[in-house]
Amino acid sequence: MNKIITISREYGAGGHSIGKQVAQQLGIPFYDRDIVRETAKASGFDPELIETEEEDISKADSIFKSICSVSSTYYHDSQDAIHDVQRAIILRLAQEGPCVILGRCADEILRDAGVDSINVFIHADDVHRAVRVSEMTGSKNATEIQKLMAKKDSSRHTYYNRYTGKRWGDSHNYHLTLDSGALGYELCIKLIVEAAQAAQ
Amino acid sequence: MNKIITISREYGAGGHSIGKQVAQQLGIPFYDRDIVRETAKASGFDPELIETEEEDISKADSIFKSICSVSSTYYHDSQDAIHDVQRAIILRLAQEGPCVILGRCADEILRDAGVDSINVFIHADDVHRAVRVSEMTGSKNATEIQKLMAKKDSSRHTYYNRYTGKRWGDSHNYHLTLDSGALGYELCIKLIVEAAQAAQ
Repeated sequence: MNKIITISREYGAGGHSIGKQVAQQLGIPFYDRDIVRETAKASGFDPELIETEEEDISKADSIFKSICSVSSTYYHDSQDAIHDVQRAIILRLAQEGPCVILGRCADEILRDAGVDSINVFIHADDVHRAVRVSEMTGSKNATEIQKLMAKKDSSRHTYYNRYTGKRWGDSHNYHLTLDSGALGYELCIKLIVEAAQAAQ
Repeated sequence: MNKIITISREYGAGGHSIGKQVAQQLGIPFYDRDIVRETAKASGFDPELIETEEEDISKADSIFKSICSVSSTYYHDSQDAIHDVQRAIILRLAQEGPCVILGRCADEILRDAGVDSINVFIHADDVHRAVRVSEMTGSKNATEIQKLMAKKDSSRHTYYNRYTGKRWGDSHNYHLTLDSGALGYELCIKLIVEAAQAAQ
């Protein structure tokens, strides 16, 4: 097993921080926005469109339509086109050596291509996530935070299901799933690093 | 968080071995058959009936009927009665101090009662499990092994869903889920011990 680590995560569960720390401790690259930048460069699509594709499907839809003035049938093909470009970039990054890749169905993309990876899913209870989201967004409005969590999760869920045919968050899709609320970020980082170091 | 560890597991994924090793390394008791013995003592039910309750619902059904000659409506109440006795025993064992408890919805029983625990789910791909089941049962018949895995998993699934209302194997129900096929038993043991030691 190679030291390529993919991290899928619920919104506000700290997947980004945890992934970044894991990469730092292992001395390997961490890919998140870089994939967006590379996809934009390779495809010519607007980086904002690519970024919102996984995070906010309805927003991505409206951006795409305003750019392209096309029907939603065509849009779906274009969403697929973005996914295909991202897929190629993820496979190229994985070929370059050990790294941590955040989101974008990297687990399934690598599995499909026969590339070994350690696939991690990070989740947390609503209370821990709400505190984190409030910290990230600066919002103190509980209803707003709740709606944001539900919307982001739903988009990631839909995106994952669309491109993998599997259920987002089902333990069977991952080698390791962690509750960052109960275990704490530090322990999550330690366990992932440990798993990566033990992998041959 | 206390060092009470609950382990749910797919058939053939090594949950029993892993749990036993974790308990040994932490120097705490490991409860599996002991719960059956205690339930039999406290309820008067046949130990074989109690044991098959989680593992093989149709067999448990036929044993129960042959003992009690009652209708299946009454049987369901009695299955609930066994579960209630097991619940009380699990709560008593947890009160006695740190331990590892295998199966029997211990995760949800403790969560419901407000008892802190580290809840683990262990799964593995069919190939790793088949090899393990062949080793455990002595069977070399692939179809037989496949049927046995499907039957045991289905029973555990049904049992878990019945008493928790949740989906067996959904990462959200556990603090830690591990793929023992990809990670190997040794690493699974190490990660669980690490999580228990870090827990306050």
